[in-house]
Amino acid sequence: MGDPMTVSGARVMDNPHRYRVLTGDRPTGHLHIGHYFGTLQNRVRLAEAGVELFVVVADYQVITDRRVGADITRTVNDLVLDYLACGLDSAATIFTHSSIAELNQLLLPFLSLVSVAELERNPTVKSEIEAMQRPVVNGLMFTYPVHQAADILSMRANLVPVGKDQLPHVEICRTIARRFNDQYSHGRPYLPVPQALLGDAPNVLGLDGRKMSKSLGNSISISATPDQTRDLIRQARTDNDRQITFDPDNRPTVSNLLLVAGLCQNRTPDSIAAEIGDGGGAELKRVVAESVNEYFRPIRRRRAELAEDNHIVRDTLAKGNETARQVAAVTLDDVKSLMGMLYT
Amino acid sequence: MGDPMTVSGARVMDNPHRYRVLTGDRPTGHLHIGHYFGTLQNRVRLAEAGVELFVVVADYQVITDRRVGADITRTVNDLVLDYLACGLDSAATIFTHSSIAELNQLLLPFLSLVSVAELERNPTVKSEIEAMQRPVVNGLMFTYPVHQAADILSMRANLVPVGKDQLPHVEICRTIARRFNDQYSHGRPYLPVPQALLGDAPNVLGLDGRKMSKSLGNSISISATPDQTRDLIRQARTDNDRQITFDPDNRPTVSNLLLVAGLCQNRTPDSIAAEIGDGGGAELKRVVAESVNEYFRPIRRRRAELAEDNHIVRDTLAKGNETARQVAAVTLDDVKSLMGMLYT
Repeated sequence: MGDPMTVSGARVMDNPHRYRVLTGDRPTGHLHIGHYFGTLQNRVRLAEAGVELFVVVADYQVITDRRVGADITRTVNDLVLDYLACGLDSAATIFTHSSIAELNQLLLPFLSLVSVAELERNPTVKSEIEAMQRPVVNGLMFTYPVHQAADILSMRANLVPVGKDQLPHVEICRTIARRFNDQYSHGRPYLPVPQALLGDAPNVLGLDGRKMSKSLGNSISISATPDQTRDLIRQARTDNDRQITFDPDNRPTVSNLLLVAGLCQNRTPDSIAAEIGDGGGAELKRVVAESVNEYFRPIRRRRAELAEDNHIVRDTLAKGNETARQVAAVTLDDVKSLMGMLYT
Repeated sequence: MGDPMTVSGARVMDNPHRYRVLTGDRPTGHLHIGHYFGTLQNRVRLAEAGVELFVVVADYQVITDRRVGADITRTVNDLVLDYLACGLDSAATIFTHSSIAELNQLLLPFLSLVSVAELERNPTVKSEIEAMQRPVVNGLMFTYPVHQAADILSMRANLVPVGKDQLPHVEICRTIARRFNDQYSHGRPYLPVPQALLGDAPNVLGLDGRKMSKSLGNSISISATPDQTRDLIRQARTDNDRQITFDPDNRPTVSNLLLVAGLCQNRTPDSIAAEIGDGGGAELKRVVAESVNEYFRPIRRRRAELAEDNHIVRDTLAKGNETARQVAAVTLDDVKSLMGMLYT
């Protein structure tokens, strides 16, 4: 928690007002505790420190996702409720990118700045295409990194918190910003070339030791009930050694559970392990379940309260979309002006 | 001129109010007389008959064109002046697609409805890429047919006048409309599946017998002066037979000049040939140059008058863009609603 996040050697937290952050999620449903400890907690810290925070609900990026299907309204609703419950409220601008025509229009000039060959090479697109297990790649998936660049550059964000697997996306965005500046505003670069903020957040694995992911069925939703949480953790994979130790290399699933308990109790995984001693997997799971339920109790309570309010998600998005639209409209107008495309 | 244009066996001119047409041009500079006799004249006829006519100035499709370069403002200005001088004024909605954010946003959902493989197969994209003589295809060129579908479908046009070489584009647009309806409004198709209107207009060749094209240096601009017109036609390719005859198969360049003179004089090429008799190429060229200068005199005069008015292009686009924006905003809102993406 206390480690300083640095960009080009500068601590973000030392000068929070220098940074405008763009971050976000595809609305695929409830967020899980891996999201929480991996990114959400960090976003709240950034916003509270005074960093200007834009959070995009990337709804166009799920329209061909069969798990989400026709129910985008529900998945967006769940995502925004999770955001608000976790503390991303007044300090952040939460918006759905489908609501910002000016942002989406920037896809056009930005597409002109990348080659098809560059799009084909993008490793994240490649792996996402494989994950879809579909032979047919549609044009929206193919151009996804350019649309993500439009998310970032329309808001003129200069900082993008990412996991390592997303670095190629940020790199395409940086390339687009640089090429735009070279071609259309060489005297005085207009678009900020955003920097990637590689988080130092711990990587919480799923209950089976793979990446935590709702679609793999190995995750615990932030909004799960205490009973659901206990049931899920009871099914977690451990090993047969009754002596509990924190040893990520040799005992990954046991160590991951210790990590979760440690994050929830704000203690080291080692100290949790020492306390359990030779209590075995069952005792470990009991401790972890109680830790998770204890930590997320206020968040879950707040989420339940928010879900009672029929207007809160609508109002949050109306406000966020209006702010985001104003920013994107200025960017689009400036971009058109620099390209010599303002005629009226 | 008098031939009825038909779509699915119905004469367009019999029920002009049933049709909304989307047509347009890439703003690469002055239009030439091939454009005039090939499409412009027909557009004016359609508009005057009561067909609802939307004319898109496809300015995003020239931003990587080195001939146009940074001077889009000038090429758009020239194009709109040509439109107005030829009679496309109050009866048509002339708009620049870069000005309609709602139109451009439709690229996103439409991209999700076509595969990369389908985009790669498009023959027009293939040949345009070859014409560019560049090894690097950018993302905007690659997705061009989908953006053209956004032009057409955002205006909910049901008729698209095209040359044969553009039929594959209309086919992709029809595919997108059908797939959207199947997927998001199966009960009651929302998007019109537009029909191609294959013109019966004569195909005027360039002065060297190739396709008339400004970049090939074989064209006569609508706005050329009489002297420029004479000089250009004097350099036209003919043959050594002094007896002038209309024989497109064996004497393509001579016959093309006769065609031009015939179009300008509203006579058959044969009757022009008979009049020239054995006057040879020089006399043919004199007749053609005078015919062109006579026909285009009022259009050129009007264009010169319009060019004196510093506000006319701006006002035309302001009005057209406002109309087009209203139509596109309704389409985008309906599309988002059908996709379940209206949250606020």
